[in-house]
Amino acid sequence: MLTLYDFMGSGNGYKVRLLLTQLGTPFERVEYDIDRGATRTPDFLRLNPNGRVPVLQFEDGRILAESDAILVYLAEGTPYLPLDRFERALVLQWLFFEQYSHEPNVATPRFILRHLGADHPRRAELPQRQARGHEALAVMEQHLRGRSWFVEERFSLADIALYAYTHVAEEGGLELARYPQLRAWIGKVAAQPRYVRLLERPAGAAVTG
Amino acid sequence: MLTLYDFMGSGNGYKVRLLLTQLGTPFERVEYDIDRGATRTPDFLRLNPNGRVPVLQFEDGRILAESDAILVYLAEGTPYLPLDRFERALVLQWLFFEQYSHEPNVATPRFILRHLGADHPRRAELPQRQARGHEALAVMEQHLRGRSWFVEERFSLADIALYAYTHVAEEGGLELARYPQLRAWIGKVAAQPRYVRLLERPAGAAVTG
Repeated sequence: MLTLYDFMGSGNGYKVRLLLTQLGTPFERVEYDIDRGATRTPDFLRLNPNGRVPVLQFEDGRILAESDAILVYLAEGTPYLPLDRFERALVLQWLFFEQYSHEPNVATPRFILRHLGADHPRRAELPQRQARGHEALAVMEQHLRGRSWFVEERFSLADIALYAYTHVAEEGGLELARYPQLRAWIGKVAAQPRYVRLLERPAGAAVTG
Repeated sequence: MLTLYDFMGSGNGYKVRLLLTQLGTPFERVEYDIDRGATRTPDFLRLNPNGRVPVLQFEDGRILAESDAILVYLAEGTPYLPLDRFERALVLQWLFFEQYSHEPNVATPRFILRHLGADHPRRAELPQRQARGHEALAVMEQHLRGRSWFVEERFSLADIALYAYTHVAEEGGLELARYPQLRAWIGKVAAQPRYVRLLERPAGAAVTG
């Protein structure tokens, strides 16, 4: 069985849980409490020297890190990843947009507000990150005008990856009221069959630790 | 012919130039001066609403953004991208590592030092970014112990993507003296046939603008 090293509050972990649940693939989930530094211990660093969840381990011991690389691996040969070379590249374009322009500015404010104290010096990062987060959300809002999904009018990895932190952007102080297309799209993702919520334990997952 | 919207000093643009040159694929290069805001004009934002180079345009008008998505598209079916599903995922793992953990902390300090004035407020970001940049370089150094290349002992997209900003990390104040494996690997990349330097105009590129 696949093992997912994970943290329930992580949107990056959630992407993988959401895809595995949609695919109906059973997996074992091992929880690491990032608030207690569990991903920076020598044991965890042997799994992922970069000290981050999620990490996927195969039954034969092979290990894969980086949420979006895990998504692509798991979606190969499924409707979530197109076969056409250019459409695949467009999915990757949005995955890289998510990790570079979106995640540090939409997810990190949420992390700072949820996980760090009110007097933590990283609070000073919030205004700049939130401003850039709104730039990323505005790019998404513009793209969705006249479209239902991010790539080729089909629900794909691009939607799963972007949804994870977008739908909880308000927990990072990024109001979604100004983005009607995004709010409609969020509703459509949540209406997919076998949808699972961010903090919900997926039905197919055995839990350890 | 392919058109690459680019900026010569950009490592993200360089990745694509380096791959195209290695593949011997002719392309037209259009230079946008990011120091003069050329990627934030209405004309450029029609190409890429996210306002960043590089952008690849195909002869039929289709457009692809995000350097690492462009690399994957171009490398499909070449020795730079493995066919094996797990090996491909490992290449993607390093591409996402590059965009999330490496580029903001190795490339951005170089950008701040080269492109922003000595009294620019973004200079305050340097210590934190450089500290995280060293963490990313240390992950790479550790991975290369006993290895020649990042994935499966073959020169691949993972090496091209990581090389672009690593080999000029010192321009961002990140000394490479402490990383002997990285320095040896940098030498091996630069010794590849058809190698082209960061600020060198590629032989196969016609230039406009």
